[in-house]
Formats: sequence, C-alpha cells, structure tokens
Amino acid sequence: MSGNTFGTIFRITTWGESHGRAVGVVVDGCPAGLDLATEDIQKELDRRRPGQSKASTARQEADSVEILSGIFEGQTTGTPISLLVWNKDANSSAYDLLRDKPRPGHADYAYQMKYGLRDHRGGGRASARETVGRVAAGAVAKKLLAEAGILVVAYVTELGGITAEIASSDLMQLQAQAESNAVRCPDPAAAQKMLERLDSVRAEGDSLGGVVVIVTEGVPAGLGEPVFDKLDGDLARALMSIGAVKAVEIGAGRECAALRGSEMNDPLLLRDGKVDFESNNAGGILGGISTGAPIVCTISVKPTPSIAKQQSTVDLARGEAAKIEIKGRHDPAIPPRIVPVAEAMVALVLADHLLRQRAARV
Amino acid sequence: MSGNTFGTIFRITTWGESHGRAVGVVVDGCPAGLDLATEDIQKELDRRRPGQSKASTARQEADSVEILSGIFEGQTTGTPISLLVWNKDANSSAYDLLRDKPRPGHADYAYQMKYGLRDHRGGGRASARETVGRVAAGAVAKKLLAEAGILVVAYVTELGGITAEIASSDLMQLQAQAESNAVRCPDPAAAQKMLERLDSVRAEGDSLGGVVVIVTEGVPAGLGEPVFDKLDGDLARALMSIGAVKAVEIGAGRECAALRGSEMNDPLLLRDGKVDFESNNAGGILGGISTGAPIVCTISVKPTPSIAKQQSTVDLARGEAAKIEIKGRHDPAIPPRIVPVAEAMVALVLADHLLRQRAARV
Amino acid sequence: MSGNTFGTIFRITTWGESHGRAVGVVVDGCPAGLDLATEDIQKELDRRRPGQSKASTARQEADSVEILSGIFEGQTTGTPISLLVWNKDANSSAYDLLRDKPRPGHADYAYQMKYGLRDHRGGGRASARETVGRVAAGAVAKKLLAEAGILVVAYVTELGGITAEIASSDLMQLQAQAESNAVRCPDPAAAQKMLERLDSVRAEGDSLGGVVVIVTEGVPAGLGEPVFDKLDGDLARALMSIGAVKAVEIGAGRECAALRGSEMNDPLLLRDGKVDFESNNAGGILGGISTGAPIVCTISVKPTPSIAKQQSTVDLARGEAAKIEIKGRHDPAIPPRIVPVAEAMVALVLADHLLRQRAARV
Amino acid sequence: MSGNTFGTIFRITTWGESHGRAVGVVVDGCPAGLDLATEDIQKELDRRRPGQSKASTARQEADSVEILSGIFEGQTTGTPISLLVWNKDANSSAYDLLRDKPRPGHADYAYQMKYGLRDHRGGGRASARETVGRVAAGAVAKKLLAEAGILVVAYVTELGGITAEIASSDLMQLQAQAESNAVRCPDPAAAQKMLERLDSVRAEGDSLGGVVVIVTEGVPAGLGEPVFDKLDGDLARALMSIGAVKAVEIGAGRECAALRGSEMNDPLLLRDGKVDFESNNAGGILGGISTGAPIVCTISVKPTPSIAKQQSTVDLARGEAAKIEIKGRHDPAIPPRIVPVAEAMVALVLADHLLRQRAARV
Repeated sequence: MSGNTFGTIFRITTWGESHGRAVGVVVDGCPAGLDLATEDIQKELDRRRPGQSKASTARQEADSVEILSGIFEGQTTGTPISLLVWNKDANSSAYDLLRDKPRPGHADYAYQMKYGLRDHRGGGRASARETVGRVAAGAVAKKLLAEAGILVVAYVTELGGITAEIASSDLMQLQAQAESNAVRCPDPAAAQKMLERLDSVRAEGDSLGGVVVIVTEGVPAGLGEPVFDKLDGDLARALMSIGAVKAVEIGAGRECAALRGSEMNDPLLLRDGKVDFESNNAGGILGGISTGAPIVCTISVKPTPSIAKQQSTVDLARGEAAKIEIKGRHDPAIPPRIVPVAEAMVALVLADHLLRQRAARV
Repeated sequence: MSGNTFGTIFRITTWGESHGRAVGVVVDGCPAGLDLATEDIQKELDRRRPGQSKASTARQEADSVEILSGIFEGQTTGTPISLLVWNKDANSSAYDLLRDKPRPGHADYAYQMKYGLRDHRGGGRASARETVGRVAAGAVAKKLLAEAGILVVAYVTELGGITAEIASSDLMQLQAQAESNAVRCPDPAAAQKMLERLDSVRAEGDSLGGVVVIVTEGVPAGLGEPVFDKLDGDLARALMSIGAVKAVEIGAGRECAALRGSEMNDPLLLRDGKVDFESNNAGGILGGISTGAPIVCTISVKPTPSIAKQQSTVDLARGEAAKIEIKGRHDPAIPPRIVPVAEAMVALVLADHLLRQRAARV
Repeated sequence: MSGNTFGTIFRITTWGESHGRAVGVVVDGCPAGLDLATEDIQKELDRRRPGQSKASTARQEADSVEILSGIFEGQTTGTPISLLVWNKDANSSAYDLLRDKPRPGHADYAYQMKYGLRDHRGGGRASARETVGRVAAGAVAKKLLAEAGILVVAYVTELGGITAEIASSDLMQLQAQAESNAVRCPDPAAAQKMLERLDSVRAEGDSLGGVVVIVTEGVPAGLGEPVFDKLDGDLARALMSIGAVKAVEIGAGRECAALRGSEMNDPLLLRDGKVDFESNNAGGILGGISTGAPIVCTISVKPTPSIAKQQSTVDLARGEAAKIEIKGRHDPAIPPRIVPVAEAMVALVLADHLLRQRAARV
Repeated sequence: MSGNTFGTIFRITTWGESHGRAVGVVVDGCPAGLDLATEDIQKELDRRRPGQSKASTARQEADSVEILSGIFEGQTTGTPISLLVWNKDANSSAYDLLRDKPRPGHADYAYQMKYGLRDHRGGGRASARETVGRVAAGAVAKKLLAEAGILVVAYVTELGGITAEIASSDLMQLQAQAESNAVRCPDPAAAQKMLERLDSVRAEGDSLGGVVVIVTEGVPAGLGEPVFDKLDGDLARALMSIGAVKAVEIGAGRECAALRGSEMNDPLLLRDGKVDFESNNAGGILGGISTGAPIVCTISVKPTPSIAKQQSTVDLARGEAAKIEIKGRHDPAIPPRIVPVAEAMVALVLADHLLRQRAARV
C-alpha cells in the first residue's frame, strides 16, 4: 500500500520522477470559493527553485506551474486542482554509473530492495525534485490559511555548526531578513559566516548539515485530533517525510529532557482579558491540540549526501566492494532550500486540521 | 474528523477515559492464523502498570485484559480483535477543583477549546490511562513481528540530566538490564543515580524529564512507503502521539546538523556476502525505507506536568487568575513508564508496514 | 486490509462474533455536545431484536447496550463512544456438524477460503448478530440527524411475491403502520397475506425473499462527494454490505432502463418560492449529490439461506459430496428484521456526509 | 471531505473538467514490475471514445493518453503513475444559456447547491468526460488482473425495452460479439432492433435507457473484506458512482425477492475434485467474499438526460420558471458507451481486493 497521498480532508497526491516527463500534484478537498491564481503557486515554486546563489546548486530550472483543473473564473470550485511542472530534458547518462552502485546516504539501495527495480536517473522518485508537488500544494494551503489569518514562516538557525541569534518574534520581519540572504538565516552576521563555511566545505568536496525552525502565527486553539492524529504527531510525520530531516522537535523539544516540571510547564494567565501563556515551552500544542500560542517546530537536516569525496559502496550487479565519487553540481547544504518545503508541509497539516475541526462540535 | 484510529492495514482504534467504565482497543487487520493468548497481552500490560516501585505512582491497577472477539481455538481469525480493561471505581471528586482551572502543561485547556466541554475527571481521554489500548494492541503487533523475526526494545538513556552509558548492542541483554531496575535504564550505575535524583525531586514537589531510545532487530530492508508514509515519518508521528514526547530523532538525529557529509553517510560494504553498512547514522532508514540495519529512534520526554508545587493558571468560569496545587500520587518522571508504550507504537508501525510491503511487487 | 470500519468523519468500527463473548462498536467522530442516553440506543436495538412474533425467530436475546466511553453528563464529548452488548451463553455444539460442511447460501465456504480457518459457531462474524453494532451506531447517527431535521424510515413493500400498496407519503405515519405488524409492512391487507404465506413456507421448511424501501425526509441539497464518494454510491455500498441484500436501487432504479429521457427527467419548478421537482425519479440524488428531494432507496433481500429442507453440499474435510439439513429456529424471511438495520446504514451514510459537507466551502 | 480518490491499496485519484485544459488520473499502489505500455491504456480509451457510430455522439475526440511518471524501461516502478489526456479547445459559449438554468436530470442544480459555484461549461466535473480517468486507470488494473488470470467483460443486455438473449457463457466470445456492433450487444438480432429504436427516438428528440451486465472469469475465492468492504458492497459503490446508473444487482439481484430459499441457494458440489456450485444465483459472492464462481453484476442505466425536447426548469438568477431545449449532439443512449467504464470500475475493485487479500493470512 503506497503512500503518495497526504492529508485527510485537505488531501494531496504527488507524482513524478526527477528525470521523467513532469512532476505534479493533485489537491483534493480544497473548499470551493477560494481565490487562486497561477501566481500564488508560482511565487512559492520560485522560492524553492535552485540556482539563485552560491548556497544552492547551479542548475537552472524554470519550473513554471500549470493549473489544469479545479479553477473557474479565478476561484476554486471544490473539484480536484491538478498542478503540473514539466521537467527539462535531462542528460541521464551521467547517472549510468550509479545504476548498480548505491550512493551512501541516498535512498538507492533501499528503493532497490523495496521494489526490485528502480528509476536510478537523477534519484528517480527519491530526488529533491519530488518536493515541487509539495510546495505547489502548500501554496494552495497557504492561501486557505491566510483567509483564516494564519501565517507560516521558516528560516535557518544553524548551519555547519554556526548558530544564529534570533532577536525578533515578528514573523514578517524574520521572513524578510531570512529571504534576503542565500542561506535564509535571519541573523545577518551568522548568515555571512555560514556562507563562508559553505565555500570552504564545497572546496573540500564535502557538505554541511543544519537546523531549520518553523513558526506559525494565528493558529486558533482547538486544532489536532487525539489520540493518534494529534497536531504535533502530524507535524512530526509531515516534516520527517522531507528527505534529509532526521529530527523533529516541538517547542522546547530535546531540551525538555533536562528541565523540571516547574520549569517546563507554561503557566496560564489573562492578557487583555484573553487566556494566554507566560512561556511557550509547549510550542503551542498540549495534548496534541493547539493552544492558540505560536506553534514552533525545529528540524535537524543532515548534510547533503552527494559529495565529491570518494566513498565506499557495493556493486550490486557484481557483488563486490566498489568506490564512488559523485560528480555534478550539488547543494553543499540542504537547509536553505528546505525552508519553503518545510513551510509547505506545515501549511498542509494546518489546512487539513482547520477543516477537520469544523466537524468537532454539533 | 477524529483521530482514534491508527495504521492502515494493521489498524487499531482505541477508546476510553480515565474515569469512565473501561478502556479498550479494537485491532482490525491482524492476519488470520496467528497464535494469540491472553497472556501475550497481559504481560505487556503488566509492564505498563504503575505501582511497582518508587519510580512510579503508588496507585494500584490490576488491568486484566479480556479478549472479546477475533480469536478461535487460540488463533486469530482475521476478524476484529476487541480487547477491554475495566477501570476501577475511582474517586473523581478530587478532580472537581480542576473543572474550571486548566492545569499548566496538561491538555485541559486545549480540550475545552476544541470540544466546548470535556470529561475533566482524571484527565479524561488525555490521561495516560489511554495508553492501555496502545500497549494491548502493541502486544498483538509484537506477536506478528516475532513470527517475522523482528524484535523491538526500548530503555531509558537519560533522566533528570543523568546520562547512561550503553555498553552493549545485544538487545535481549539490554532489555534484561533495563527491566531489572525501576527506571528501566540498562546502565546500573546511572540507574542508581537516577533513582536518587527522583527521590529528591519528589520531595521538592517537582518532576524530571528524560530520554528513551527504541531499537529494533531483524527489520528487513524495504519497509516504508514514500513519499508521505515513509517509515521514519510514521515512526515520528507514532512516537510524538504519546503524551509528553516533545522530540523524535532517527539515527544520528539532532547531531546530524553538526556533521559533514563524509561523516554522516554510512558507507556500504559486504559482510559475509551480504550488503551491510559500516556505521548507522541513518538509524536504519534511507529515503523513508528500511535498509536492514537496526532502526534507532530517540524520544525526549518532558517532566511530569502534575506537580505539587503551586502554579499559576486561570479560572475559566470566573475569568480571573488563579493558583493551583496538584494533589495525589503522580509519577515524578514519565520515561520509565513510557518504555512499553514506545515499544508498542514502534511495533504497530512495523507490523503495518510489514503487511503493506506485501503489495509492493507484482 | 480488513474492512470493519465504515465512514470517514462519522466513523464506526464493529467487532464480535455470534458465539463470542460480546458484540460491539466504537463510534469515532461524533461531534461533541450531542445529547445521548442509553435509551436512545436501546430502543433501536429493541426494534432489531428477534423473538417478538411469528415473523421472526423464537430465540430470546436481551441485548442490553452498555455505553463504556465518550459520554459525560449526558452529552457526547467528541471522544470515541464504545458500545457493547454481551452475548448470552450459547450452545455451540449444535453447530459442530457445520464445521466441515459449508451451508449453501451462507458465507461458510467463502470465509474458509479467505482466512484458512473460521469460527463456525453460529456463523461467527458472518452472523446476523453482527448487525447489533450497526444498529447501535446508527442510533447515534439518527440522533445527530434529528438535530438537523433529518428522518430515515424503512418498511417492507414486498414479501414472498406479495406486494404492498403504499398510499401515504407521510413518513411518520408509514413508520407507525409498518411497526404495528410483524412483517413491518405499512399496508395492513398485504401484511396479513405476507404473514399467512410465511406460515405456509415455514411449514414446508423453506423461506421467502422480499423488498424493503428506505425513505428520508429533510436531507438538504448538497450532500455527496463526487466523483467516487457520491451519495448514491455510498448508500449502495452501505446497503449491499448488509447480509442477504442482492440489489440496490435509487429512485426509479431498475425501471429507468425502460423509460425515455422525457419521462425519467424530473422537471424543476418553484414551490412557495423554493426550487423543487415535479417528480422524483432521481430518488433525491443527481450527480451523486442530494437535491433536497426525499432520498428513496430500494433493496432486494434474498430468502433466508438457513432452511430445514435437505440440501447438497461438500464435506471439505473428507473431500466428498454430502447432504445437510439445517436445524434450529430461523427467520423464514429476513426483510422485517432488516428494516432497522437498513435505516441504520442509511443514517450512518447521511451523518457522515452531513459532516463532510461542512468542509465544502471556504 | 472530497471524494476523488478510489480504492485503498490500488488507489486512483481522478481530476479534470469537461472544458478545462485536460483530464487525468494518478494511479498509486500499482505493484512494481508490471509490464505497461501506452498502448495498453490507449486501446481502452479508444473503446470509450465517442464518434464511431450512430449509437454514440458525433463529436470527435482523439484522447491520446500520455504517461508522465511511474514507468521505467517498460515496467511499473511502484511509484505513482500519472496519466493525462488533453482536452480539445471547446466552444463553451454554447453552454452560456445553462449557467443559470439547471438541466433536468443533470447534476447542475446539485453542484450549485453543494459548492455555491460551478464550472457549468460542458457539465464541468459532472461530465461523462470525467470517465477518461476511470478507463485509463482501469486499463492498468486490467493488466494486473490479467497476470492473475482474471478477465472482466461487459455488454448491453437491454436497450429501450428490447432484451437480448445471451446464448453463450464464453466471455471472450461474448465480448467479440458485443464489440462488433454499435450498441455493444452480443445478440445480433436484438442489437439490430436496438439500433432501429435509437434512430426513431433520436428523431423524436428523446433518449433511451438500458441494462448492462458485467461478468468476470478467474476471480479466486477469498476476495472481499467483511463486514463493510465486502466485495459486493464495493462493486455496488463503484458501479453506482458512474453517472446515470440507478440500480446495481449481484447475481439473481432483484429476482431474489420472489424466490424461495430452496431455489435461491446454490448447492455446493465437487467438479473434477474441486468445490463448485450447481447454480450461480449468488453471482459469485457470499458473505461479501468471492466464492470462485463468476461474478455477475447488472446495472440499470437511465436514459440520457440531455434531450432536444423542451423541458421545464427554473432560472436561478431570476428566481422564475423557465423552459430549456438542449442543443448539440448527444448520445441518445448511454449503455453502449458505459460498457468500458463499467469494466474499468469492476477491474479497479478487483485489483484492489486482490492486493488486500495478500494481508489476510500470517
């Protein structure tokens, strides 16, 4: 039983391989009557697109989205929204060497063992190109969330061991700062150091990992469906399903293990007559349900597995040890490019739970 | 749209509140022909049961499971397996004070906001008692996994800032060591310190957080369904859906952010003619699919939110600030008791994906 | 992948075998804040219960429902509602003869081939006793529908070739008439003839089939989810999933094959300023979506397969032809008892679609 | 919660409107390693295509399918198969008149009430063009079934009151006969009369209904998932979800109501040492599970709602009664064109249950 569909009410199905004809997504369950234009989706795909700077791969992809269904006179009709992006003709012969030699840190071996065969060209379905569908669908989710006053913003807080200082809690400002540099870090000084470290590690034929934080604004209390479709559980799954993510934390996350209850608990209080919290160690979620406080997720992203350095692997056809050096222009770090993907996944989860909550009361 | 069902093929639905008549679970999709006895389930519920030591609450719960359907002459029949555990008559009046005063760090406020009303007695559906159904169903999953040679073991590696040293990689041995002490830590020296720290924090009316590791043995390569029902994504969701868990890591997890690609990638090699990995930073999962290496998950567990110390909250009925002191005997740390629950959740995910994989090839 | 869960938002999972300990159902997704008492469910189970008259089997079953979770102070809380009915101790030895000899017209052989083993006692999971869970859950659905002004009524229109004349279109009146006799037929004269024919066929050791009509009132326009979860498709599945049902028709149904478009189409008109239809050949559904007109479903029910007459079968253990005579008191006709079950299934479909429709528009 | 996804393991999602850019389908869950070529799909779309004869509309549609993903070197890879058919530029202005005037017998009014807006051009999502995705996906399912020795064949048995005599039980022969005439009826004499009646009714500006039978060969015993995903229930839903279908019967169907148990029950016997049935009133399904006998489904199809004759409707914008005459070339009868669609839906259900059955036993 395959797993290319995500969500329950706001539900997406992505398809496409790196070197196939196209990649795309079908969004089913978007409510009727939402204003939606090609530009709404294109601007998110443009953020995802590589090639703008030294922080990302030099490949050029136009990635123009086409809306094939579900929109009438500028509005969603409640029927499936089919979105498609054509792949450029790619030279797949560069990947011939990889056919029998699984790349360390890549999905090659696992796919081969699962299906008995695989499209090895450009990573096939396991390529980062698969995220085109996520980001396109996420753009639709963001439009729906915006109607409800909900904002989702992500940025890089750590790269190659360099940690940013996050001074502001103003999401719009943080996003503007992050989007102004190639590593998408809202701390300009840290961003500069990250870029320098990227340059040196690229020269060594190696790569760097990092950390991305995703924060929301305007999520009302009440979203999340205990006991298995809790909001934090669904966010964890959504974020962990992005390639290269190895850890997901909510609120205080990993730090909570060293805290005492009296430190961890966020006291309730009244602020302007409304219930609020003195702190936000919970990251906006208690018992799997949103509390009205900002939702804070942190993901740890492993270093790019495609490196120029020689690595050991196995030649599956010959049944013998082998060496591999991965050519081509690869991002030396994934976090900057994962930012719009992580936003998309969080937006998809929230859009789904926003609609699910409509059935919670008589 | 509620979320009390978990899994796709091996699918469970739990029900029940802390102070209701009973708690239970319906397991649908367990294959026919599996030997299953009440003892298989009871022994896991006994591991979950509080009251054995100072590390856990002093409440006594018998928790005898009854199998109401789905078994015939000692074997599963392919029909739903209904499992039930009666609740003891509880004195709910102790909870009257909490009706309008949400406890910090608890789900009280979130439930109230979601549903407009809630069963506040003993935490209702958000009580840890809800995990009875998880553990009972997990016991069935473990039986199925055992047939396939798969083992799942969890233990405590950190508590209140004290870190264990894990010397062995023999799962049976680790489990024996962990189960021999009240904090379920396989390092006896660390376990002793953890118990002492628990004593002192209990005396202060406070509580501690910690870390639990879950490891598997025998999981074949090929489990996991990209791109959304990846094995790591489903594990993350499963583990994050346990109350008090605030972070989930796979393999190197949080540490991967500071590694280089050449350090993080696990080189492939041949061992006794079979493909294996030199290291296991991936934690047994690449591209969302198991590789055949042990799966390693790490969860961070927040300190018990129920503490005797006075805390600030809001009286929702009166619309004014209030203070709260939580009486009763509560575990000063959740990690030891979460061990069998975490094993159950991992077992449920693996059983589901084991069956899903049957449809992967023609 | 098993199939004991029904519905998407209003979702039920039934469990239990005929001669097991109990039968039951978990209702997940019922909105919070619905008044619900044991009597609401018990009264529907009482309608389902056999033993009241010559039209049904003489077995006595008390069938007292217990609500085990999900209700607090008389209202649903949004958490799963677990409903249980204990089975009486049954003498299963009468079924020993059937262990290896599948009964013609029964599920015995199919279950054996599917699962490799089966609980043969009393039909196991394939027994009509399984409908206890459907009726109990349907009672909850009916309460929810009643809040929305929706009524579901079923009655027998044909039995053993005798056809009723349905004079009224007043659902309350039709139901009162139907419930006043043992065959649940709203035409008293036809009902009398049906009872006489039942007597004679029972004396012959044979059984009769019949037809049941289910009609709704108050269903608003807009329910149903094209293109696969159409309202008529979901109704067809729900009704066909009841044992013994071999045909489902909507509106004109089978008759539409012989009509012309000008006869079949229901012209639209204005009635008291509201859109209405001149006729209702569509049975209240167009394009898989309710139109606001009454929904009319017709099901054809096969004669009871358990008959006293000698029949041919195969002894699976010996691999040879065999004869079988089915002892015991069996209903000579199923339609009267199927009435509350059919109502329950239609109510469950409508409750689910009523909640699904909440997500249809921004 | 929308409903454009069908199936659980072999799962399809269709999208597209009649006058949108394209229509298509994503097939997820097709096992890896199946040989699949464009021609396999194209030949089924060609059968679906209108324009070949007087029995169907004179519109010409090329309907060339493009495979956009999921195939590598002629085989399925286990990843989603995206299939697309471009729409020809259509003149939508002919539909302007229908914007505010719902056509009787069409989904226009229901869609408007459900979503608050609709793409009225060419029927939008409710157009028969939507079945392109069903037929394309069904072609993939048929390939999978063929590997398992399963065949699905449909043909017309009644049209405008003329009934065919079905002399043969050889499915290949029946299909050859049916496909040799424009009404797809395997009885040549009846087919001739049907064609004549179609001519006369077309001249009157009216239309005809009919009956289609779908039969399978080679379905093994054991498919179907009680108690809600029974094989007959899923077939009923699948077939009822095709526009214009108003009744679904299994085996004896509607006729069973007038039979006695001794007539309806199919006695078991041994034929060449294998269990078989003396008759097939059950239509190959007992207790919702296939028995190994041929599965027989009968659907009743209403007359084409688009007729030239003047009809009454309502002008929704003006809130007043109105008249409507539907121009354009419309099929005067749907049954011949529904044949490949019905085959596709049955194939999709069987492919799904074939894969589901893989998880039935340990």
